[in-house]
Amino acid sequence: MKKDYLITGGTVLTVNSANDIWHDGAVLVSGGRIADIGPSAELSVKYAGADVIDAAGKAVLPGLVNLHLHSGLIRGTAEDMPVFEWLAKHVDPKHRALKEPEAHAASMLCYAESLLAGTTTVLDMYRYMHRSADAAETLGMRAVLSPYVADNPPYLYFESMDKNVRLIEERHETADGRVHVWIGLEHLAYCTEDAYKQAAKLAEKYGVGIHTHGEESKRMARDLHDKFGVWPVELFHRRGILGPRTVLAHCVWMEEAELDLLQKTGTSVAHCPVSNLKLASGISPVAAMLERGINVGIGTDGVKENNNLDMLEEMKFVPLLQKVSRLDARVMKAGEVLRMATMGGAKALGLDREIGSLEIGKKADIIVVDFKKPHLAPFLTGKYDNIVSNLVYSASGQDVDTVMVDGKLLVEGKRLLTGNVEAIMADAQQAVEELLARREAFVPKEFVFPSSRL
Amino acid sequence: MKKDYLITGGTVLTVNSANDIWHDGAVLVSGGRIADIGPSAELSVKYAGADVIDAAGKAVLPGLVNLHLHSGLIRGTAEDMPVFEWLAKHVDPKHRALKEPEAHAASMLCYAESLLAGTTTVLDMYRYMHRSADAAETLGMRAVLSPYVADNPPYLYFESMDKNVRLIEERHETADGRVHVWIGLEHLAYCTEDAYKQAAKLAEKYGVGIHTHGEESKRMARDLHDKFGVWPVELFHRRGILGPRTVLAHCVWMEEAELDLLQKTGTSVAHCPVSNLKLASGISPVAAMLERGINVGIGTDGVKENNNLDMLEEMKFVPLLQKVSRLDARVMKAGEVLRMATMGGAKALGLDREIGSLEIGKKADIIVVDFKKPHLAPFLTGKYDNIVSNLVYSASGQDVDTVMVDGKLLVEGKRLLTGNVEAIMADAQQAVEELLARREAFVPKEFVFPSSRL
Repeated sequence: MKKDYLITGGTVLTVNSANDIWHDGAVLVSGGRIADIGPSAELSVKYAGADVIDAAGKAVLPGLVNLHLHSGLIRGTAEDMPVFEWLAKHVDPKHRALKEPEAHAASMLCYAESLLAGTTTVLDMYRYMHRSADAAETLGMRAVLSPYVADNPPYLYFESMDKNVRLIEERHETADGRVHVWIGLEHLAYCTEDAYKQAAKLAEKYGVGIHTHGEESKRMARDLHDKFGVWPVELFHRRGILGPRTVLAHCVWMEEAELDLLQKTGTSVAHCPVSNLKLASGISPVAAMLERGINVGIGTDGVKENNNLDMLEEMKFVPLLQKVSRLDARVMKAGEVLRMATMGGAKALGLDREIGSLEIGKKADIIVVDFKKPHLAPFLTGKYDNIVSNLVYSASGQDVDTVMVDGKLLVEGKRLLTGNVEAIMADAQQAVEELLARREAFVPKEFVFPSSRL
Repeated sequence: MKKDYLITGGTVLTVNSANDIWHDGAVLVSGGRIADIGPSAELSVKYAGADVIDAAGKAVLPGLVNLHLHSGLIRGTAEDMPVFEWLAKHVDPKHRALKEPEAHAASMLCYAESLLAGTTTVLDMYRYMHRSADAAETLGMRAVLSPYVADNPPYLYFESMDKNVRLIEERHETADGRVHVWIGLEHLAYCTEDAYKQAAKLAEKYGVGIHTHGEESKRMARDLHDKFGVWPVELFHRRGILGPRTVLAHCVWMEEAELDLLQKTGTSVAHCPVSNLKLASGISPVAAMLERGINVGIGTDGVKENNNLDMLEEMKFVPLLQKVSRLDARVMKAGEVLRMATMGGAKALGLDREIGSLEIGKKADIIVVDFKKPHLAPFLTGKYDNIVSNLVYSASGQDVDTVMVDGKLLVEGKRLLTGNVEAIMADAQQAVEELLARREAFVPKEFVFPSSRL
């Protein structure tokens, strides 16, 4: 039986449709769900039997949803390269060398890092994802798994559609419903037309979503247009995968016609600002997407292109890049960013009736951020309320001190309760050393831009 | 008498001219200075009597230099506004209301935040700066103080040149040489031609530097050009303040002629990427500056425009913005960013013979960053060395666990030893509440763009 918790004394940022904020508020967690929200004074009397989590001087908010992530191990080893050269020289050879136990070590490391930084749900695209499912089950993470499927001949060492189907049959909606499995497709250069058409059918058959990479670089967008006469999002549409259960990562270079299609089909975008900067892809026009009502969530991308999985840090980049790209400081308020990182992600995953905000009846995916620190002081409510601004612009994942998924306490006082962090790091260290040594054999001597393989 | 310390077992990033890195290295601190650097095994035997600071699994590097900062209290209260409207409606009225004890509370908060995040030296522009000197003295910070001087009639409530001179006479090179005083000038719209000319003479007379704001917004640069027929840096030159002891903040919109002048005169730039994004000013062409040999350091700007003082976070923005603005991922390596944040700042302040790198004979301004965390794993040396990349792209100020200035331990195990953080935050809280209440009387009903006052 699940414990009851009463989180009291904090500033509760509900991210409900009215953006209600309770100062000195309380949240009752019962049976894994949010059972009540209101003033601390009132709820403390009403639910005197619950275990109290003291959130005085802290913010209480929905767990963050990382809408685009690749589990991985090669953090900081592949730097200062444009996206397709980096894929060819570092990432793809890594995929050829990767073995199952290493993939497990990677998901354990990345999910531990994510939980400690306040992310309660990930949309992960990776390999050997039954082991990602194991990691999510062990650590208590909520995870939507979308394997890296590729069927274009040079890339057959990725996952296959058959394996993706088996993963759906074996692991979808397992771990008390915390693990979901989607169809994953690497990229237009890695997958044939047939793979996309098959994906659309399978998603329909199993009632699951589709996750794939939209374009990142201007050159790839142009090359696709040269070959097919349409822009990438139009090509996705022609191949039948757009719709409300599809999440496209990146979408940096957007033609009006592509925005129209995202809007019309209800397709969601996983915006990954740091990755788009680091690989010099560009700045995605997400303010324009929001203005059109396109649903946008936020992703960190992997440790090899960021180099961390800190959603609070990522959230800072989102409004800053929109402000500068329009040279208008009024664009995108902190509250909109918080919504993207919670409800935006939840909606993209079809989970917005269950998670993404603090509302009675929803699953208790909740984080507590400690504001009693010099870099988050002063703490102001009323006319000059600075809590949401400072959450987005001043806080980092290391300010998160408590994390709960499905009403289960996973992080308490910054300690991960469901795994031994030292052992997870030691496993990752051993795995990456073996992986990098084995990868040497697969590193190509010359780089060929992959649009030649379209 | 100062203690001897031996920092052992860490990865020592010297930032010397050869960029030497010692894995399992050690640094001996004696008499407040760096007395030896080398392999841990060797130095541990040689200096068996010193107090040992264990840095295994950690990086040891020069303290960070925050080259542009305003002490302040109104974090997160003035959001989503273009720079000059935000100055007129929030910042300038705050200056009219600000009292001396509040200024002291602000410097205490900002220096405590800075030290805890690994900044050992600040170039601060603020008010009542004898109290900033007090704060630096109390907390052990190294600080270069440049008051907000303004003499354009609407801004006479700022500091005066007379007060600036008095501060030099009373506090320059005090606190064992940790406190320096420079001439500070607010901005071209806030200061008359006479103020700049006087500043140049006084800087010469007292052997101190000059700090002022270069332009941030395109509109201000254009308005200055319309009025004076030259671009802002040219105007600074005409007014006689460019040179190797002058630091211009921002410099976002740069004409070729302005870059030429910075290069020719040896003037330094304080690059503040987050502030320039948040106020929608633009992206400063700092990669082009470095290519010309212009000295660039990094600044966070104040808590009201960032909203934190975390130099490690700021460092991540620097290469990312250069990569995206040139759409070239090869631009600006992590090592260059580390150099800007240490030696770049030190050189700008004329302190590069004393601080900015770990070299024998230099003052012991040293920080230790803990890498034994999931978001900084794996820890790789050799062919795939990822330490500097992960320092710049994955770490944040909260990974700093030890901070030393002049060989004195100020932060140990993330705890500030020289001040009570809770009391500092409580003072700041009380001060800001009084300040904001008093400010109401000074908030203008209408906004007038300040170039009308040129």
